[in-house]
Amino acid sequence: MKNIISIVVKNNSGVLARVSSLFGRRGFNIDSLSVSTTDDPQISRITVVAESDDYGLAQIVNQSKKLEETISVKVLAENDSVCRELILVKVITSSSFDNGIVQLADEFGALILDITAKSMILELTGTSQKVDKFMDSISKLCEGKDMQIKNVCRTGITAIDRGV
Amino acid sequence: MKNIISIVVKNNSGVLARVSSLFGRRGFNIDSLSVSTTDDPQISRITVVAESDDYGLAQIVNQSKKLEETISVKVLAENDSVCRELILVKVITSSSFDNGIVQLADEFGALILDITAKSMILELTGTSQKVDKFMDSISKLCEGKDMQIKNVCRTGITAIDRGV
Repeated sequence: MKNIISIVVKNNSGVLARVSSLFGRRGFNIDSLSVSTTDDPQISRITVVAESDDYGLAQIVNQSKKLEETISVKVLAENDSVCRELILVKVITSSSFDNGIVQLADEFGALILDITAKSMILELTGTSQKVDKFMDSISKLCEGKDMQIKNVCRTGITAIDRGV
Repeated sequence: MKNIISIVVKNNSGVLARVSSLFGRRGFNIDSLSVSTTDDPQISRITVVAESDDYGLAQIVNQSKKLEETISVKVLAENDSVCRELILVKVITSSSFDNGIVQLADEFGALILDITAKSMILELTGTSQKVDKFMDSISKLCEGKDMQIKNVCRTGITAIDRGV
């Protein structure tokens, strides 16, 4: 089962190492993790997406709560939360300008952030499902033409629970 | 000096703990970090933003390269790279619908992802400068009215170098 865990911590040096080693020690494979400061620069929010059963999840939540720097730990349900991620993709295009990729960007509402004679960088923000579909479509487009995906940067999911 | 370091690694359990403890041991404070798989599910990309001088940076790059799972390490220059981040902000609005925040969203090109009678969730993707300015504007708006920022989730920077 895929779980989204939101951990708010005091922004000490080494806190991320402690949180991620918690997951590592329990053999959890982290699908994605993002951490950055909140509106208070002393406080950071870590959003982790990891596969686990209910027992493993309960253990991780308990252990995370015990860390000195932890302020709060919350497991977010995908249905009751806004879950979004950002992806940047660099595609090596054939020597001439490729219209297929522009059409694809338009279809998904992606932005084109950089163009050279032989490359393009695309940006998309959305749900993981949308981002996965976007990547599939780019892969298929590249297969049919003389193009190649060179780099993919995903932020991983960041999430916030709906309502007050 | 703020540095953006892009580390491509084999997706083993515990690799993130090893990378982040490298930074922790050297007393680096990580501004933001994001990690997710690339187009190959066996391979992940870690993007770290951290303050350091040139000497510290060189050390971190060398140490990261020595990790068993590391495939490549690259320091990205902000001028030659596309650097973007995603932010979600939940604002507790006054009991009636607030038009100021809708105008602000329009001004920045932010999306409104959730609305209840007493809250709104906004999404913005852009450079860190733009995201900071957006946060400042929301804070100012909240001060003047009966509103409050409840949650802030930032993915931190993800970046890709321009051109081929």
